[in-house]
Amino acid sequence: MPDGTNPLLLRQDSETGVTRLTLNRPDSRNSLSFAMLGALQHALEEIARDARVRVVVLAAAGPVFCAGHDLREITAHRNDEDAGRGFFEAAMQRCATVMQAIVALPQPVIAEVQGIATAAGCQMVASCDLAVASEAAKFCTPGVDIGLFCSTPAVALSRAIAAKPALEMLLTGAMVPAAEAQRLGLVNRVVPAAELTAEALALAGQIATRSAHAVRLGKAAFHRQRGLPLDQAYAHCAAVMTENLLAEDAAEGIGAFLAKRSPVWQDR
Amino acid sequence: MPDGTNPLLLRQDSETGVTRLTLNRPDSRNSLSFAMLGALQHALEEIARDARVRVVVLAAAGPVFCAGHDLREITAHRNDEDAGRGFFEAAMQRCATVMQAIVALPQPVIAEVQGIATAAGCQMVASCDLAVASEAAKFCTPGVDIGLFCSTPAVALSRAIAAKPALEMLLTGAMVPAAEAQRLGLVNRVVPAAELTAEALALAGQIATRSAHAVRLGKAAFHRQRGLPLDQAYAHCAAVMTENLLAEDAAEGIGAFLAKRSPVWQDR
Amino acid sequence: MPDGTNPLLLRQDSETGVTRLTLNRPDSRNSLSFAMLGALQHALEEIARDARVRVVVLAAAGPVFCAGHDLREITAHRNDEDAGRGFFEAAMQRCATVMQAIVALPQPVIAEVQGIATAAGCQMVASCDLAVASEAAKFCTPGVDIGLFCSTPAVALSRAIAAKPALEMLLTGAMVPAAEAQRLGLVNRVVPAAELTAEALALAGQIATRSAHAVRLGKAAFHRQRGLPLDQAYAHCAAVMTENLLAEDAAEGIGAFLAKRSPVWQDR
Repeated sequence: MPDGTNPLLLRQDSETGVTRLTLNRPDSRNSLSFAMLGALQHALEEIARDARVRVVVLAAAGPVFCAGHDLREITAHRNDEDAGRGFFEAAMQRCATVMQAIVALPQPVIAEVQGIATAAGCQMVASCDLAVASEAAKFCTPGVDIGLFCSTPAVALSRAIAAKPALEMLLTGAMVPAAEAQRLGLVNRVVPAAELTAEALALAGQIATRSAHAVRLGKAAFHRQRGLPLDQAYAHCAAVMTENLLAEDAAEGIGAFLAKRSPVWQDR
Repeated sequence: MPDGTNPLLLRQDSETGVTRLTLNRPDSRNSLSFAMLGALQHALEEIARDARVRVVVLAAAGPVFCAGHDLREITAHRNDEDAGRGFFEAAMQRCATVMQAIVALPQPVIAEVQGIATAAGCQMVASCDLAVASEAAKFCTPGVDIGLFCSTPAVALSRAIAAKPALEMLLTGAMVPAAEAQRLGLVNRVVPAAELTAEALALAGQIATRSAHAVRLGKAAFHRQRGLPLDQAYAHCAAVMTENLLAEDAAEGIGAFLAKRSPVWQDR
Repeated sequence: MPDGTNPLLLRQDSETGVTRLTLNRPDSRNSLSFAMLGALQHALEEIARDARVRVVVLAAAGPVFCAGHDLREITAHRNDEDAGRGFFEAAMQRCATVMQAIVALPQPVIAEVQGIATAAGCQMVASCDLAVASEAAKFCTPGVDIGLFCSTPAVALSRAIAAKPALEMLLTGAMVPAAEAQRLGLVNRVVPAAELTAEALALAGQIATRSAHAVRLGKAAFHRQRGLPLDQAYAHCAAVMTENLLAEDAAEGIGAFLAKRSPVWQDR
């Protein structure tokens, strides 16, 4: 478990509403131990309730972004009475919960990927709303190399990029460079390593200047409608648009636009 | 409402079966007022019943393709007794109906995009079966700038391009140039401005030379099967293929192909 | 029907678990006659039960990969008492069964595309898990040219590439070169013609060195979860991951990784 001097997950809140979470287990390649997943789950639950947070940046300390599950911890639990079944179920469940919590978070989440993102680490990038990568970043789902196919990473990966490139990553475990990841749709922007944090924070800062109410409505509507049939998707989003239009921020925003002045949002 | 001398929507029918609809409200950046949406809905209903129309091209007059909803009209309705709720619901419903009418139209629809396509204008391009753009065209969903997230545009956009680029457009409102829009899958072809109309009409003309029966069957089958599970998609399309094979145009087309002559379709 | 000296479909099994199926009707452009579809169905059923097969490569003899359905056979059946209806239904059903059998096959299937892949031939490439193409390969769905829209090919194509490029292929019948097919996501790799077979076999060989158990679990999970809502997809794949973790190959693979040695899989 994290202690005060060396927490697994660092949280920095800016006055502009940008919260940066940093995976802080660089000696273990920021692997997703049960405790790290717990720290992520806890942090996301707190952020979901925190009206001051407008955008989240998910970063990592050290040269590796995230190496996926903690294989030493998994191996240690093979000595459990049940040969690990209980732990494996709990770890997979907690991991799936964290990935879905990113998608379900009211605020947009931007991955800031400075190094290699492997397996569940790659899944975390795929699960974020946006991703900015360093030119040094790489992406792979190499479970197949160790007899453990990346089946849960496939859920996020196959919803981010086309099927054949996803299957090539999953079946070969090949390392995908940042530029190729951008071409495939796995990341939005690729910048030199020295500019990465500034680029991620600038993107977050830009979104943070907008109406938090509208951004929250929109993010939720986007993910809600994605899997629906076209008519249900439109019925849902047309209702969301009406609610959005009736909110004060839209009246202010549209009024400001027509008057050629800057809007002032409710929560600012 | 449109009058005879200055209709909101121009319709030109060619002898080859290509109908060109032109948004004709350039002074208002072809914004989708309630009347413009009504004109589009009416025109699409007429075209759906018109066996002479084989392909539709959707174009726009003036420098802007379409700026989305009419913000002045929306703002005016804030003075309604219900603060606009009734109008907003009706406008969002009508807009969703028009977008779905493009998808459901028996004939293929090609967007001819000469300028900026914004918000519901971008959604209209995403909703068309094909899109040809001028090098001067640009695409954005900037509702977030005015406190009104582009939730209904997201329905069409997220069905045309990958999730992360779609979310970047929606969360930042950034302007996407034509070449990038092509790379993302939002438009099929990009040509110099001077060649745009010729390119769109050539593409339409090419499709118009085919069996209208087969094209209609196929367009409907494409959209019907998209959201279905694989087995249901195949069951539906295998039945469509059998119907298609038993129609006279397929007998003629296959016979002509085997005999190395040009086919003559039923409706020509 | 195939005979011993000139079978419709050649099967070569390697000692490393790579099975290469070759469409062997080059004089008919490897078209998918009812017998060819039967041979494919039979071969896939056999392979599904064959634990020695770890990966399948689907190749073709002669200059054309596959020209789609056999139009001469279709035309001949127009003389049947029912004008062909029974045959058309059976052929479309059998074709849909073969395409779904590729997806459902426990082993990954790699298309090795040396030439033009047309209509149901293009559908077959789209249905494979991976595809390697020669620089000489081309792809099209030109049913629209002969009054027979490629509705069943659209099922596979629209699950491999974005909607607008798919509709352009379907509505125009245009020939897509290999490099463009790669950009769209229809093929994974494009290599010079002289290197095609070596590349496909190297890719297959690489996958064949992995735990067959993990690869089978993973391929099935990938296709199972694709169409599910996010929560159901995660519930399914988290259960698969737990099963995978409890299998001997994962214990061996993870142990070998931590010990920096090569793993030895159960079935080797």
